Amino acid sequence: MSATHVRSFMDENFLLTTETAQVLYHGTAAELPIIDYHCHVSPREIYEDVCFENITRLWLSGDHYKWRLMRWQGVPECYITGDASDYDKFIKFAECLPRAIGNPMYHWCHLELKRYFGYEGLLNAETAPAVWRLTQELLTDPAMSVRNLIQKSRVAFIGTTDDPVDSLIYHEKLAEDQDFPVIVAPTFRPDKAIHIHKAGWRDYIAKLAEVSGTDIQDMATLTEALGKRMTHFAEHGCRAADLGMDYMVCRPVSKDVADTAFAKAMSGRALSEEEAEGYMTYLLLYCGTEFARLGWVMQIHCNCLRNPNTKMLERLGPDSGFDCIGPDRGDDAMARFLDWLDSRDVLPKTILYSLREADNGYLAVLAGAYQGEGIPGKVQQGSAWWFNDHLPGMKKQLTDLACVGILGNFVGMLTDSRSFLSYTRHEYFRRALCDLIGQWVENGEYPQDAEMLRGLVTDICYHNALRYFDLEVRK
Amino acid sequence: MSATHVRSFMDENFLLTTETAQVLYHGTAAELPIIDYHCHVSPREIYEDVCFENITRLWLSGDHYKWRLMRWQGVPECYITGDASDYDKFIKFAECLPRAIGNPMYHWCHLELKRYFGYEGLLNAETAPAVWRLTQELLTDPAMSVRNLIQKSRVAFIGTTDDPVDSLIYHEKLAEDQDFPVIVAPTFRPDKAIHIHKAGWRDYIAKLAEVSGTDIQDMATLTEALGKRMTHFAEHGCRAADLGMDYMVCRPVSKDVADTAFAKAMSGRALSEEEAEGYMTYLLLYCGTEFARLGWVMQIHCNCLRNPNTKMLERLGPDSGFDCIGPDRGDDAMARFLDWLDSRDVLPKTILYSLREADNGYLAVLAGAYQGEGIPGKVQQGSAWWFNDHLPGMKKQLTDLACVGILGNFVGMLTDSRSFLSYTRHEYFRRALCDLIGQWVENGEYPQDAEMLRGLVTDICYHNALRYFDLEVRK
Amino acid sequence: MSATHVRSFMDENFLLTTETAQVLYHGTAAELPIIDYHCHVSPREIYEDVCFENITRLWLSGDHYKWRLMRWQGVPECYITGDASDYDKFIKFAECLPRAIGNPMYHWCHLELKRYFGYEGLLNAETAPAVWRLTQELLTDPAMSVRNLIQKSRVAFIGTTDDPVDSLIYHEKLAEDQDFPVIVAPTFRPDKAIHIHKAGWRDYIAKLAEVSGTDIQDMATLTEALGKRMTHFAEHGCRAADLGMDYMVCRPVSKDVADTAFAKAMSGRALSEEEAEGYMTYLLLYCGTEFARLGWVMQIHCNCLRNPNTKMLERLGPDSGFDCIGPDRGDDAMARFLDWLDSRDVLPKTILYSLREADNGYLAVLAGAYQGEGIPGKVQQGSAWWFNDHLPGMKKQLTDLACVGILGNFVGMLTDSRSFLSYTRHEYFRRALCDLIGQWVENGEYPQDAEMLRGLVTDICYHNALRYFDLEVRK
Repeated sequence: MSATHVRSFMDENFLLTTETAQVLYHGTAAELPIIDYHCHVSPREIYEDVCFENITRLWLSGDHYKWRLMRWQGVPECYITGDASDYDKFIKFAECLPRAIGNPMYHWCHLELKRYFGYEGLLNAETAPAVWRLTQELLTDPAMSVRNLIQKSRVAFIGTTDDPVDSLIYHEKLAEDQDFPVIVAPTFRPDKAIHIHKAGWRDYIAKLAEVSGTDIQDMATLTEALGKRMTHFAEHGCRAADLGMDYMVCRPVSKDVADTAFAKAMSGRALSEEEAEGYMTYLLLYCGTEFARLGWVMQIHCNCLRNPNTKMLERLGPDSGFDCIGPDRGDDAMARFLDWLDSRDVLPKTILYSLREADNGYLAVLAGAYQGEGIPGKVQQGSAWWFNDHLPGMKKQLTDLACVGILGNFVGMLTDSRSFLSYTRHEYFRRALCDLIGQWVENGEYPQDAEMLRGLVTDICYHNALRYFDLEVRK
Repeated sequence: MSATHVRSFMDENFLLTTETAQVLYHGTAAELPIIDYHCHVSPREIYEDVCFENITRLWLSGDHYKWRLMRWQGVPECYITGDASDYDKFIKFAECLPRAIGNPMYHWCHLELKRYFGYEGLLNAETAPAVWRLTQELLTDPAMSVRNLIQKSRVAFIGTTDDPVDSLIYHEKLAEDQDFPVIVAPTFRPDKAIHIHKAGWRDYIAKLAEVSGTDIQDMATLTEALGKRMTHFAEHGCRAADLGMDYMVCRPVSKDVADTAFAKAMSGRALSEEEAEGYMTYLLLYCGTEFARLGWVMQIHCNCLRNPNTKMLERLGPDSGFDCIGPDRGDDAMARFLDWLDSRDVLPKTILYSLREADNGYLAVLAGAYQGEGIPGKVQQGSAWWFNDHLPGMKKQLTDLACVGILGNFVGMLTDSRSFLSYTRHEYFRRALCDLIGQWVENGEYPQDAEMLRGLVTDICYHNALRYFDLEVRK
Repeated sequence: MSATHVRSFMDENFLLTTETAQVLYHGTAAELPIIDYHCHVSPREIYEDVCFENITRLWLSGDHYKWRLMRWQGVPECYITGDASDYDKFIKFAECLPRAIGNPMYHWCHLELKRYFGYEGLLNAETAPAVWRLTQELLTDPAMSVRNLIQKSRVAFIGTTDDPVDSLIYHEKLAEDQDFPVIVAPTFRPDKAIHIHKAGWRDYIAKLAEVSGTDIQDMATLTEALGKRMTHFAEHGCRAADLGMDYMVCRPVSKDVADTAFAKAMSGRALSEEEAEGYMTYLLLYCGTEFARLGWVMQIHCNCLRNPNTKMLERLGPDSGFDCIGPDRGDDAMARFLDWLDSRDVLPKTILYSLREADNGYLAVLAGAYQGEGIPGKVQQGSAWWFNDHLPGMKKQLTDLACVGILGNFVGMLTDSRSFLSYTRHEYFRRALCDLIGQWVENGEYPQDAEMLRGLVTDICYHNALRYFDLEVRK
């Protein structure tokens, strides 16, 4: 290969290895608005239009991806989640980064520095002090407030992730705010009500009872309470729900059996796996049925091994960067769950995610068995998730989906992030998508039909999500 | 990448990205006869030399791959398996196709239109009416009869898939027909006798008793009946059997235990999983033993989740495009099954298929543990099957096999199809194979030795199957 | 692609498809010493500085990879492990080799012939007699003795694999030998003590009792005996242990429960799976704890299906080329095992290997959850192992690791081999690594920073292992 093929690091044609890809990206994908239908940003921070003091607050205070990298480098915890200064934390992170060759973090960080701070250089131990100063200076500018970051990123819709007990006060305030054209809708995530076997479940039920004004005594009153909260969410523009399952369960039981499990757990006694799964199934089926009635999209994230590091769980609590990929329990619960709903005509639009990359084909094929008339891609395999959200993972998900389904109906990317700089992940995805399509086209595997290609890219990056989530974006 | 590298869609060097690949394909692979050792075409349609009324009858009346695509697009079922006109069904399918970028269906359809109808354009909503007219016109020509399609495709051998109760009358007639030089041999597929826990088993046993003239009362008489049918199949040129298992079982039981399960199922009582698996194992081991004695090849297709969509099963019956990939039950039944037979010196030549792509390496390595003296590749990992039968899947299967076994002994491709136009899948496979080999060679990973390469390609595309299935192709 | 891109087979830029890769390999990787921290060579053969009579003794007398290939070709066993002459065995192997296109064996053999015998041609049926003569002639030269092969390969450290009952006499003699600068350290592999359910366990315990001078009556005395052997190993330079598990177990039991299982097995009674796993867990946790105290690296090799071919096991014994990839039992035992140790602050540096390629991401992510302060990459996903040790497998392992961890901290390659010619596998790995990095760089995915790249390559190929295994290489 001659030297003329060598590309500079992350230049304008980053990841775009063919002319077709370059034309598709720059001419079509780059300018499309972003529908970020699943993320973990704070509606309060949006409402309050927060500014961040420094890049550590933006980058390191909540990003467990970065914490994992630092731990992998052997960095002491005080520089990660501990008492070290923001400056020192940033320096430590910058020292790790160049060693993470091939890791999406390397690309995410540099894309964010380019797009939001105009910094075109590298981040490493040597440049870190200068990058700290540059970013700190820029962050004092109100142009770098949360709302400005969002609008600068051309975000049209944000789907946050919210607990049923959440008041949604900030969603309400945002909806009333005529100055902010971006739709910020809540997503109903009832995990805490479902996970009866996990610590805190009883307290949560008490909280739910209080918030919903319902005396929760059994499954009937529990579902009544959840139903009230769904109504509340619907009134605040909710279009989607999310179920986070360590592993999918489908062990349908009668209301009586679920009531018994409920009562047992409320009395503080431990449930057998069978009892817990029966209760969970009862609630999941109730939720799915209601989601369908409400026209919501149901997302299911599963196969996660939560909190496998006991010591760090005790020290830092959950969601601190220790979760792992869950084992394959080898059953067909997901199929039975979808079938239960579908056979009763109450299967909502559904997006399936698994942390196991080997599940790609399995989920894409499964989605194909529960499609619905009039809804292209009613059941979907979701975008490469979490530990699979990297360049090879995204390309594999797109390819695996394309091979057994209709890629043109895919609802595309989401950030799944807590950060307001992560919208560059949509850029990253769009470049990867255009590159994949460009390779197919230039290899003679798909026609060089500019209009068709533009249509596919626009659909996958924007229109499909718009349609799928029933959005009317504010102009 | 400069524009000069861009290839036209599906030109003569489709998928052939190196000169070595082009020379190998055009100079060697393209002209080889086709041994289609596993498919689902109708021997009756071959014998009767059927002509098809229109392309919908050829393409859409039995192809659940296409049905899946249409459902994924949200097309109403009436246009898929329902009452809509053939013309409307075709139009609906053509509308979906361009959205299926990256799906093998896009390639299969265009290859078939090119090779059988001489249509060099694209199929989409705009062109569909013209393609309908063109194909309808051509299909009136007797040159497009089933036999002519087969011979035009240079098919030398067809292995159909047949139930033990089948009379094989059309195989017999075809064998007697001196005008048709293609060998059409039956394949013995005793699934209905094996799946004791599935609906219809008792009726099937009654039918088997009738056809075999055997009073089936227990395992002895059941195996006697199956044995008679094997003899019947052998007399009609059968060289292979096929076992379609949701998941592989190997729970050897005594004849008494199997008899008890048999009697229980005959009396209409439900079997425990243990009882059913004991019965199935008994019969599978009997079958394997007999296949070895007869010199047949045993194919095992496993890890399929059958009929997960209850509603559509009730509406359309099985095999309507709803089957999925089966879960991983995490046991070593396949190893124990092969070992049981091998340790008694009654392991037949065996080809292993799984719907889980992640099983590639597992099956290829397993095959390596049960080889036999004098039979290159006695136990094989089969070609990429069903949901894996696409370009990345074929290349992955070839690569995974090459990495742990001897690719040069692979028996190669099969259509697994119900359609007489699917022989282009052999072309597709051969192009992919030549491309893979070409890349190895031009990357310096294998010598540029024309004779050796021709030999490998010829073996994998033709000779290995000829030898493995003990074929003497009629001249 | 024009003909000018075609590379000769295995030329100096073998596998190096970019200039960056070529510069990195030839300028940096090629010259680095080899730390072969996990292999199966005989310390006695090193001490005695054995010469091999002919290439069959070097290549075929102990290499089950080659045996598998020959069996896959249908070669009779007499030419593999039987009575045929060394010459005939070599000829038979040479006949198979060219058919194994895409198999790493094709590359390994030709690399070894080039590097150790200066043979630049191909090995096949035609050339085999000449290659036999050439190699036989060269092998008479003392320059081809074991020690010379090792030194010629620039090996700085060899970690052998040793049973606790081993006297380590040859390690001792080697350590005393001032003429041989290579460090040869034992690795403590207590598999036979752990596998209570396998044949020979009782005899092994008796042997361990004798060697350790301990009256082994229960868990206390068993761990006392193993502890003494660990001390013995530590005194002989041991830095690492290895656990070979069919599948990982973690079912912690009290000492009493383990004692009961021990007593039952000693009395010759069969254990339930639960009893066996309880005993094994007790011992594994004891071992892990001690390894941490000693500062050893703990390697865990798991998911192997041992001896699935009963007939050949009876004929040839274990480790004869019939082992396979183990099934996925779908539990989280590995996580629970690591957590048990980590939560007690006794988790040693650990390297995780699985035979299932689909476990790559799972293990890499798991490793990320148990890192340690001050130890970059304290828990690692190991190099592509056994059936995954090939070009696509190595690249996939590197990519999967890079995507979720810090590739720059990877301890790199090992031969896992019984042969003194296998050091070329380090060359193979280094070429693959440089090629992967070169592709990232020339595709604009990582900066073209020569110093940084040299540092990463040096670390992965050499320095990381040096540091991780606490080595001081003799000058």
